Amino acid sequence: MKTLKAIGFDDGCFSKKDEKVLIVGVVTNSKGMVEGVLSSAITRDGNDATRVIAKLVNSSKHYSKLKVVFLQGTTFAGFNIVDLRKLHEKTGKPVISVLRKKPKYEKVMKALARFPSKKKKFEQQEEFNKFEGVYFKAIGINNTEAISLIKSFRISSVIPEPIRLAHLIASGITRGESSGRA
Amino acid sequence: MKTLKAIGFDDGCFSKKDEKVLIVGVVTNSKGMVEGVLSSAITRDGNDATRVIAKLVNSSKHYSKLKVVFLQGTTFAGFNIVDLRKLHEKTGKPVISVLRKKPKYEKVMKALARFPSKKKKFEQQEEFNKFEGVYFKAIGINNTEAISLIKSFRISSVIPEPIRLAHLIASGITRGESSGRA
Repeated sequence: MKTLKAIGFDDGCFSKKDEKVLIVGVVTNSKGMVEGVLSSAITRDGNDATRVIAKLVNSSKHYSKLKVVFLQGTTFAGFNIVDLRKLHEKTGKPVISVLRKKPKYEKVMKALARFPSKKKKFEQQEEFNKFEGVYFKAIGINNTEAISLIKSFRISSVIPEPIRLAHLIASGITRGESSGRA
Repeated sequence: MKTLKAIGFDDGCFSKKDEKVLIVGVVTNSKGMVEGVLSSAITRDGNDATRVIAKLVNSSKHYSKLKVVFLQGTTFAGFNIVDLRKLHEKTGKPVISVLRKKPKYEKVMKALARFPSKKKKFEQQEEFNKFEGVYFKAIGINNTEAISLIKSFRISSVIPEPIRLAHLIASGITRGESSGRA
């Protein structure tokens, strides 16, 4: 069997002064070896995360080899919410959002009072599944297949390696030194 | 034996319009696992590369565990030349500059005509050693120890993994998608 490849995304740190926020994608194989790093900028509290991530995936030289797109949660750069279903449609790849903690659904829905149009996108977050230390939601594949892919790309933590690395890089570039866990 | 750690540096892409250039440091263990990402900015054609890299190394939370500082060559951000000996003195760590190709000593010395003060720093580049597909110069350890460290941190190419990753990240952040080889 050929080595699987996956891409994982996370965003950088930002302050309320920033209009744009760094987003980083990392391509690894299932041994965790980094094969590529991609980046772009998304709008703080904006609506462009789905489009920007889809463009990075679709224009990557690794596109044809990618088995899955992993995301750290679904909320980037404040309240720039990724529409998982649309991301799956735009890329033609399975999409798996992974989190260490259960999304704080009610808290976020309350905060989204000032962004009524975002509420619908975020509603999808209610249906996360639990698996060995992480919560996940998969679009484009069933949960059994999603768990198999999560397991394939776990190397040094419960979080799939492409997401762990995207977090380290995005925080290392925006803060000067990476910190915390994906 | 405890797992060794190393840090490797490379710079991002830039144009003549840029005053500052991204520099990225990556900490890995000898299995190639990424443990940290650091970044800062250095001046294009400036004289701050040695100081900025030393500061990143010395202030890193991984400092005490680092066995060696790897650099991709000695020339960053145009003609911002690292003084390998000074970097060794400032960090207290062995420093190994590694390149795939032999430094073009005479060509660079000619280009440095407009930077007479940099010529002296660059003279150190004349004495690179060859080892299995790379050229290297080590300060603070002998060549046998340097070769042992280069071998320890080669994972997926002839270039030590921290440098390979620093190159992928720096080019992925500054160009949008990483390209080429370290």
